[in-house]
Amino acid sequence: MPSYTAPLKDYQFVLHDLLKVSEQDVPGYADLDRDFTGAVLEEAGKISSDVLSPLNVVGDTMGCVLENGVVRTPTGFKAAFDQVREGGWTGMDVPEQYGGQGLPYIMHTAAQEPMVSANMAFNMYQGLTHGALSAILAHGSDAQKDMYAPKLASCEWTGTMNLTEPHCGTDLGLMRTKAVPQDDGSFKVSGQKIFISAGDHDMAENIIHLVLAKIPGGPDGIKGVSLFIVPKIIVNEDGSLGDRNGVSVGKIEEKMGIHGNSTCVMNYDEAKGYLIGEEHKGMRAMFVMMNEARLGVGLQGYAQSEVAYQNAVAYAKDRLQGRAVTGVQNPDGPADPLIVHPDIRRNLMDQKSFNEGARAFTFWGASLLDRAHQNSDKDAEGLVSLMTPVIKGFLTDKGFEYAVAAQQVYGGHGYIEEWGMSQFARDARIAMIYEGANGVQALDLVGRKLAIDGGKHLMGFFEMVKSFIKENEGNEALKKDFLDPLKAASKDMQAAAMYFMGSMKNPNNALSGSYDFMHLMGHVCLGYMWAHMGKAAMEALDGGASDTDFLNTKIATGRYYMARQLPSTALHLARINTGADTVMALEAANF
Amino acid sequence: MPSYTAPLKDYQFVLHDLLKVSEQDVPGYADLDRDFTGAVLEEAGKISSDVLSPLNVVGDTMGCVLENGVVRTPTGFKAAFDQVREGGWTGMDVPEQYGGQGLPYIMHTAAQEPMVSANMAFNMYQGLTHGALSAILAHGSDAQKDMYAPKLASCEWTGTMNLTEPHCGTDLGLMRTKAVPQDDGSFKVSGQKIFISAGDHDMAENIIHLVLAKIPGGPDGIKGVSLFIVPKIIVNEDGSLGDRNGVSVGKIEEKMGIHGNSTCVMNYDEAKGYLIGEEHKGMRAMFVMMNEARLGVGLQGYAQSEVAYQNAVAYAKDRLQGRAVTGVQNPDGPADPLIVHPDIRRNLMDQKSFNEGARAFTFWGASLLDRAHQNSDKDAEGLVSLMTPVIKGFLTDKGFEYAVAAQQVYGGHGYIEEWGMSQFARDARIAMIYEGANGVQALDLVGRKLAIDGGKHLMGFFEMVKSFIKENEGNEALKKDFLDPLKAASKDMQAAAMYFMGSMKNPNNALSGSYDFMHLMGHVCLGYMWAHMGKAAMEALDGGASDTDFLNTKIATGRYYMARQLPSTALHLARINTGADTVMALEAANF
Repeated sequence: MPSYTAPLKDYQFVLHDLLKVSEQDVPGYADLDRDFTGAVLEEAGKISSDVLSPLNVVGDTMGCVLENGVVRTPTGFKAAFDQVREGGWTGMDVPEQYGGQGLPYIMHTAAQEPMVSANMAFNMYQGLTHGALSAILAHGSDAQKDMYAPKLASCEWTGTMNLTEPHCGTDLGLMRTKAVPQDDGSFKVSGQKIFISAGDHDMAENIIHLVLAKIPGGPDGIKGVSLFIVPKIIVNEDGSLGDRNGVSVGKIEEKMGIHGNSTCVMNYDEAKGYLIGEEHKGMRAMFVMMNEARLGVGLQGYAQSEVAYQNAVAYAKDRLQGRAVTGVQNPDGPADPLIVHPDIRRNLMDQKSFNEGARAFTFWGASLLDRAHQNSDKDAEGLVSLMTPVIKGFLTDKGFEYAVAAQQVYGGHGYIEEWGMSQFARDARIAMIYEGANGVQALDLVGRKLAIDGGKHLMGFFEMVKSFIKENEGNEALKKDFLDPLKAASKDMQAAAMYFMGSMKNPNNALSGSYDFMHLMGHVCLGYMWAHMGKAAMEALDGGASDTDFLNTKIATGRYYMARQLPSTALHLARINTGADTVMALEAANF
Repeated sequence: MPSYTAPLKDYQFVLHDLLKVSEQDVPGYADLDRDFTGAVLEEAGKISSDVLSPLNVVGDTMGCVLENGVVRTPTGFKAAFDQVREGGWTGMDVPEQYGGQGLPYIMHTAAQEPMVSANMAFNMYQGLTHGALSAILAHGSDAQKDMYAPKLASCEWTGTMNLTEPHCGTDLGLMRTKAVPQDDGSFKVSGQKIFISAGDHDMAENIIHLVLAKIPGGPDGIKGVSLFIVPKIIVNEDGSLGDRNGVSVGKIEEKMGIHGNSTCVMNYDEAKGYLIGEEHKGMRAMFVMMNEARLGVGLQGYAQSEVAYQNAVAYAKDRLQGRAVTGVQNPDGPADPLIVHPDIRRNLMDQKSFNEGARAFTFWGASLLDRAHQNSDKDAEGLVSLMTPVIKGFLTDKGFEYAVAAQQVYGGHGYIEEWGMSQFARDARIAMIYEGANGVQALDLVGRKLAIDGGKHLMGFFEMVKSFIKENEGNEALKKDFLDPLKAASKDMQAAAMYFMGSMKNPNNALSGSYDFMHLMGHVCLGYMWAHMGKAAMEALDGGASDTDFLNTKIATGRYYMARQLPSTALHLARINTGADTVMALEAANF
């Protein structure tokens, strides 16, 4: 049975040594001192280890079952959900007027990590609720906010997002679900939605579905899509629950993983729906939430890699197999532990250096979102918009890769469900797909984000990297191991961006390299995070910090990333520079 | 429901245009003309598409069930196994005196590919049988061969390999299963073996277990291991079946994939066993078969990628989503097919160029095995020994990677079991683990194979590549797209080998780069194959071959590999050159 312990020191290091949150001029950040964040995250870690982690395998094994139209969640989920509710975890960053705690989004992000690591499928019930709540808060009327927000913030009710239909996923303009206006101002929503996470379950008395649909007579394609609130049970004006709405579960999908979450086919049959925001502006309403949702999925990627890594380390220390090539290290045992072997180290260091870099990148992204929303900082908003497809695409690709790598440490035992390592890989796999498949993230990055505001945010990022290198060039300890590799990687990224700019005439040249660019940029971002973390750890050591083991390990882990991972940028650049010639060479018939 | 069609033209291209099998001076090869291999492989393709492929999802869904000590295989497996038996597929390369067809091993390899693509879990029942048979033919006494070989060649009986125990996998010296000599020359075998593929089932009247065990009083560790035949039902001297032996199934493991194959815990309780070969020389007996077994697992890797690719292509042509950025391509439809999008192309070309290169590499390896065994060619044997960990490790890593990439083309539908893409990924995953986990392959390659016979075979390979480049340098069509990239990649490989030679003093420096070297070498080998295939396709076109589409596609696919995949060698070299410093920097406690 796998286990999980929240890496609290790492959270604190990122929040305080790297991001120095309590010194930032963002509303609410001043209160985020070490003691406060430490206490909150310790609690989040506790419920994750004690309550959620033991249910992870249970959820995978039992799955969700549809019985007489009602979805039954795995044994133990309901009680655990009550505990999450009592802890107030979902509403942490919700304004106090709606029953939340009004904390910055970065605290929500940090507190989510252990819960996602411990039980990703379970945590999606509150994750989707948070998403639906954000949409209502951003675009709903005051009456809608008053009616739904407190119940969602407390997780008494849960939420869902309904976008995909059988024939359309990415291309939502093809959508067929329709919403017919009624005399009372409501709509009758009819159609079928698929892949609806947390679509139905037995853990809440109501479920608030957010549904994209077309109002007949509106514009064609994506411009004719509107967003609706469709409650499972209609809410009366006094807030009491009324009639069952015309919403039903068609079936639960059999999936590769996240079995603990009910992925439903949802049928809407003249269900009562309420427009959120303006008619035909549904996609705009969705897009506002996307940065947050995609950051949350990126977090899922590395959070699965983190828990898989923890278990791989434990196994590598415990399992005796072979002898160290440089001499016996466990003379009293029949063999040395796996962790003596260089290739096991190589594998574990790949995982560790990614996880820690990814966490820094994600928390930084969350701080940019806070700055964008709380300070109306347009630069922060532009920067985080640029980073979002990288956070989502790169961190989920790598998160899956390293969950698989952690599984590999177990040898044959990794393939057996009993040890739980297969589940981490199977669960992590979905994060590469939903909330916009990673190929779509790459398209968004190269086809749209690089050029927004005239490329200002991309240039701004290059400038940040360059300034950091310049400011610290005199720091000998940092230069060779951190700054020089970062400089080389950043140059590769600039060269790739230049190549794209030069290939305007044939957009296929740029788009053939979009996926590589997403990874190239991901490495540069993690390299940039590591350079900052290396500096922060050195400064803490210089300042006489007591936890020298932790800080020296941080520096060594950063050195590994810079030496062994960052050189990937050159490969991605080489691929990008070949353009579309070989990619688009074949007629479709010749595949 | 996924489908599968054997790529017969590709088989023929590799056998005849690339390897020119019928011109080779290996016994039996002269008979392998185009018509003959085409007819055989068409039949193999037919049974694969019509019988085995439809059972793939069935096997995954139903799995194997242990009832009252007997394993029940999924519905339809037994009838399909009878058809495989009738076709004589297992004994294709077995000497005629044991009921086989006496064909070269390369034909067995080629005929296995479609069966593995169509249904990997099912095919393991005959794959393990072939492995056990090979061990008996190589090391058994004449009486043992006469008693067991014909029944295994016909698949009336099946075979298994029993190595792993709960506390030891790679490090077999820790083994506890013991074999106590009896007065009649037999042994009583007692112990527990785990992860025994095809360990029990209801498709054959007897199962011949090959079991590694220690004879008490023998040398410690790996040098005290012997190999035994332990039949499920004891075979009387007249060949009739006698008493049930002391072998039982402890349980069937729940696994990530290959559910159609029964992976058993096998308990041996004073079971009657018969020594194969010499006492304490069990590992030597196993090692002889390892090249073959590992080549077979490498084939599993790319064969799963191949079937996943075929289905991804079909989906990419069928699914309408979005519009081509260079202009609408399907004006009569609501959207263009996925295959117009450059990133979908990039993904499919990665898969396609790998699959075809991997097939060439594997068939070439099989031809080297034939040459080694049939011609007692020591150079061929040395070369294939060097290549074996690369075939196994690189092709299974990449095979899994591309099965996952193919799954990605389906978006959300790829995650749903209904479409079958998840199964290809889950099934492919095991090939990276069993028959020596890929980290162990890398260790075998760098720690042992590079240096055998004084590095002669490594030098021989470099020489082959160099000569090929030199001989063809005047070929303008080949030079830029194939030879130049191959030269650069080969130089990277030489530089890595030089680095290893220079790091004798600290073996951790070499072993920290072992995994990267395995991949570096894999790319060079596939690049070498592609350069040959490019040349062969150009020659066929020059010779007036009629299938110009096929040949031009081959050349374009090769160009893709050389431009987009081969540059990976530089990244692997960069990682290798950093040595052990960052890999081994941490104390175990600080992970």
